[in-house]
Amino acid sequence: MNLKPLNDNVLIKPQAREEATKSGIVLPSSTQNEGPQKGQVLAVGEGRLLENGSRAPLAVSVGDQVMYKKSYSAEELELDEGKCVLVGESDILGIIK
Amino acid sequence: MNLKPLNDNVLIKPQAREEATKSGIVLPSSTQNEGPQKGQVLAVGEGRLLENGSRAPLAVSVGDQVMYKKSYSAEELELDEGKCVLVGESDILGIIK
Amino acid sequence: MNLKPLNDNVLIKPQAREEATKSGIVLPSSTQNEGPQKGQVLAVGEGRLLENGSRAPLAVSVGDQVMYKKSYSAEELELDEGKCVLVGESDILGIIK
Amino acid sequence: MNLKPLNDNVLIKPQAREEATKSGIVLPSSTQNEGPQKGQVLAVGEGRLLENGSRAPLAVSVGDQVMYKKSYSAEELELDEGKCVLVGESDILGIIK
Amino acid sequence: MNLKPLNDNVLIKPQAREEATKSGIVLPSSTQNEGPQKGQVLAVGEGRLLENGSRAPLAVSVGDQVMYKKSYSAEELELDEGKCVLVGESDILGIIK
Amino acid sequence: MNLKPLNDNVLIKPQAREEATKSGIVLPSSTQNEGPQKGQVLAVGEGRLLENGSRAPLAVSVGDQVMYKKSYSAEELELDEGKCVLVGESDILGIIK
Amino acid sequence: MNLKPLNDNVLIKPQAREEATKSGIVLPSSTQNEGPQKGQVLAVGEGRLLENGSRAPLAVSVGDQVMYKKSYSAEELELDEGKCVLVGESDILGIIK
Repeated sequence: MNLKPLNDNVLIKPQAREEATKSGIVLPSSTQNEGPQKGQVLAVGEGRLLENGSRAPLAVSVGDQVMYKKSYSAEELELDEGKCVLVGESDILGIIK
Repeated sequence: MNLKPLNDNVLIKPQAREEATKSGIVLPSSTQNEGPQKGQVLAVGEGRLLENGSRAPLAVSVGDQVMYKKSYSAEELELDEGKCVLVGESDILGIIK
Repeated sequence: MNLKPLNDNVLIKPQAREEATKSGIVLPSSTQNEGPQKGQVLAVGEGRLLENGSRAPLAVSVGDQVMYKKSYSAEELELDEGKCVLVGESDILGIIK
Repeated sequence: MNLKPLNDNVLIKPQAREEATKSGIVLPSSTQNEGPQKGQVLAVGEGRLLENGSRAPLAVSVGDQVMYKKSYSAEELELDEGKCVLVGESDILGIIK
Repeated sequence: MNLKPLNDNVLIKPQAREEATKSGIVLPSSTQNEGPQKGQVLAVGEGRLLENGSRAPLAVSVGDQVMYKKSYSAEELELDEGKCVLVGESDILGIIK
Repeated sequence: MNLKPLNDNVLIKPQAREEATKSGIVLPSSTQNEGPQKGQVLAVGEGRLLENGSRAPLAVSVGDQVMYKKSYSAEELELDEGKCVLVGESDILGIIK
Repeated sequence: MNLKPLNDNVLIKPQAREEATKSGIVLPSSTQNEGPQKGQVLAVGEGRLLENGSRAPLAVSVGDQVMYKKSYSAEELELDEGKCVLVGESDILGIIK
């Protein structure tokens, strides 16, 4: 199953975190979900609807590596690509160069 | 009874969830109502009213398979098609391809 | 006494609920006021004022059968037509076909 | 003393409620202040200021009989006409025909 | 010291309240500060900034007798004219005729 | 170090308050920080960004004597001019004449 | 790893605070994170999207020395330049001259 997001939503494939810190300590999974996260953009919506009736294209594109935060409105989904997360564009912190 | 939604509301026929998990354990119904859900669009409103007086057509169409979340404003209705749910377009996560 | 609503308000004559469920159990009145309700549109306002100074006509018309919810801002009124309810258009879930 | 309201405010002369119910029971005054109330429009403001700098004329006129609710922002005033109430137009439920 | 208010603020010289009620009872000062108050407009701002970059002139003018309420944002100031109060135009209930 | 404020922010040099009241009582410093304060404008931002993309020039200028209030968003800064305060224009009550 | 911020976000390299106060007392790190902070702008987004569909360029540029506050929405990131912070432009107090 694939998903085409609506409006200014972005579908992201999270990058697997290193399972252990440099000192070899394995972090419990709850810790791994805190703070900014990295991932790759799988699909983007057609943009937020403006009051003039047109849509504003998103600033991220399919294939971009991004940092994002998981706000309360983020949704975890099980798709063909595995575990994915759907976030609004405002939860994307930036594009990784 | 059929229902024509207003504004940017969408009428959805929820897809029946598998009654049991792969391991054969039957989930209680409360668990089945959590998280993103799948369904088919039965009817859509004419779109949100813009400040210029026109309406913005919805990004989903009748017949689309969608994933949606049941926010506090979602309404469950008993219609000719059986149990349906009415949600705002912003509660639709995306269109299933 | 009749009432002409203002702005995007809609005056509705609630449809009497069946006094008893199919199994013959009479529901207490508090239960009858929960969830979506049916009614007929008796009168509508001239529409919400837009920032350009014009008014957006309502999407419902006098005589429509509608489903609505009674939000905190709904007002119950005793008019010539009996007990009526005044709701904003955003509390109307859809038009019954 | 008379008062010319500003913006979308409306000055109303409340209609005296019947002091007793049909069954002859006199209601305490606290009960008489609950729920929708009737009154006559004494004066109206020049309308809400729109973002384009013009004002939107009110939908009610001097002399109209209206139903209104007394929200938290309603103000009771002692004027030449006796006890009056100043409400925003959005607290007027409709015009009595 | 005189003050030229900014935006849609209005500087008011409160009218001294009668120190005693008709029946000769002197009200404590806390009671005198409740409810709508009368005063004279000493100075007005140049108006709220609209999104098109112009300013909307206020509906009250210097010299007007007004009724106003003292909301949480009202500021009491000690100026050349004595004790004054600065309020936003939305806290002015109307112009006394 | 000097600071050029952004948007509609204003940098103010607070006027030292008289250390004692007329009756010779020295107020504790907590009392001196309450209520409206006087100061001189040291620098202003280029104005709030309007939706049409232009900026609205501030209503105060460098050198103006102003009264202001210290809201929760005010920031105290140690600059070349000594202790300064940065406030939004909406926290400026008016220009002292 | 470098990051290109989105919209009106700004990536800042915080300036190391002096580890000790003038009197030689070393402040605990929690104290060092309070109040306005200094830093250098490393990267800026393309600006907030306006309702007309264009973007408003930021008022700060790469290389600017700025004072900023760390609001609840600030994000700390570990990048090639070391520990950085991503803030919205509204959290930048001004440009240091």
